[in-house]
Amino acid sequence: MEQHYSIGEIAKITNISVQTLRYYDQIGLFKPSYVDRKTNYRYYKDSQLYYLDIIKSLKYLGTSLDKIKEAQQFTPAQLLTFLEQQESVIEEQINRLVEIQQSLFKSKKQMQEQIAITVFNEVYEKEEDAFRILTIAPERLNASYIPNSYYSSLLKTLEIENTTISSRYGCMYKYAAYEKIEDIMYDHLFTPLLTDRYITNLTPEMDVQTTPKGRYICIAFKFTAPTYLEQYQKLRHYIEENKLSVIPIVYEIFMPTNYAPNETDEFIVELKVKVNIPH
Amino acid sequence: MEQHYSIGEIAKITNISVQTLRYYDQIGLFKPSYVDRKTNYRYYKDSQLYYLDIIKSLKYLGTSLDKIKEAQQFTPAQLLTFLEQQESVIEEQINRLVEIQQSLFKSKKQMQEQIAITVFNEVYEKEEDAFRILTIAPERLNASYIPNSYYSSLLKTLEIENTTISSRYGCMYKYAAYEKIEDIMYDHLFTPLLTDRYITNLTPEMDVQTTPKGRYICIAFKFTAPTYLEQYQKLRHYIEENKLSVIPIVYEIFMPTNYAPNETDEFIVELKVKVNIPH
Repeated sequence: MEQHYSIGEIAKITNISVQTLRYYDQIGLFKPSYVDRKTNYRYYKDSQLYYLDIIKSLKYLGTSLDKIKEAQQFTPAQLLTFLEQQESVIEEQINRLVEIQQSLFKSKKQMQEQIAITVFNEVYEKEEDAFRILTIAPERLNASYIPNSYYSSLLKTLEIENTTISSRYGCMYKYAAYEKIEDIMYDHLFTPLLTDRYITNLTPEMDVQTTPKGRYICIAFKFTAPTYLEQYQKLRHYIEENKLSVIPIVYEIFMPTNYAPNETDEFIVELKVKVNIPH
Repeated sequence: MEQHYSIGEIAKITNISVQTLRYYDQIGLFKPSYVDRKTNYRYYKDSQLYYLDIIKSLKYLGTSLDKIKEAQQFTPAQLLTFLEQQESVIEEQINRLVEIQQSLFKSKKQMQEQIAITVFNEVYEKEEDAFRILTIAPERLNASYIPNSYYSSLLKTLEIENTTISSRYGCMYKYAAYEKIEDIMYDHLFTPLLTDRYITNLTPEMDVQTTPKGRYICIAFKFTAPTYLEQYQKLRHYIEENKLSVIPIVYEIFMPTNYAPNETDEFIVELKVKVNIPH
């Protein structure tokens, strides 16, 4: 004789909670074979257990309850097709996570570099790896004030690609003698790319560049517009005094020191110029 | 002068919907810098946009809103620690998906094998790969009726391991001359393992075995208790008539032909015996 089980017994045998079993009944995914009219108790027969295992195994494979309900009507050939589709879904999810992993690795590196800056208002030298940046050429913009909305358009491009955005920004300008901050005109604003992906959908003002690997002359300081030029001049003075040959581009990176939107903005700025390798 | 934006403008610049921005305000994640007392309109300043980018980038890295709110109070060093933790979280998610991928591959193979059975009630030969099975030794159980609850205990073991369960079952018994179905006593019930993982937490009755790769003599039929023995005897007759040397174990696999719990159960049974390779 085939055995019958109460909902509590089924819950115990299958490790599925009574609430879940009731819910499966409600949505028509798995119904008891018999309901007692008087007591409203649900009874399940032993041979039904098998179908609960099918539900479990599809659930494990990442299938939604709606889709499982659909799959219950499948023939074996249709189920095979479904499993093939599910393979693509899982593959896409893995690819996405692998990209997040890559982005985390690069974000970590950025944070490590920021934390490694211990000298402020003084020139130092350091080795830097190459990194890919997404740039935008602004219209007549000087160092005294950068509207954040420029960066928003860079981020929009990255969001269309569905890739990670960096919460770090920078800009580039010509290495030269400046009299006042308003004379420093930005050639490019940029954000570091946290992905190795090929970026499409660039607007005409945008470009993907790679900053050169090598030795940089740097200075870091807490950003305020009035002291900016003074810090820049320290950097320039050091380069001239040491008769260094440099690539005439200044990279300016700004890094937040707090992440709460309602505190006072405080940014560390690092200016860096790459030393030319002698032939 | 720093620019101010309405909520609609911010939505446009950042690609975040007005509803989401209102929600971020409600939960204290990102508040407008100024709210007009009369109109209740929210205004944001340009320099705030940066903090929205931080929220976005953490969200992309798989961080919950609660956790982002916590991260807003972090120092750069704490944020680095958080990114390291997030790396482990993502790694675990990838490992899990890779195991699902493996299980999907094996499930697909099972379905393909089932679909490949086109001959019924007649003996055929086929090559089979080895596969790992999780077995349980039942107490005095014969082929006329198998309670599903035996399989539930196999599944529980797999669920503790948090691995995929197969919705396919089988059993093993001695290859011998039987007079009636009640004489066939199962040595083991089993479920194929869809994972390559090492399985711990076995009860004393359980074991992990590997079925041998090689040539099998098989017969498939729609399961009914009355015809079972007749089909078995066809298989035995074929083996004896062809004077085949076989490993004296019968593998019985049952496969559902529909997945809906409320239809009549219909299973295909395949019996198979492995041919010995001559020395």
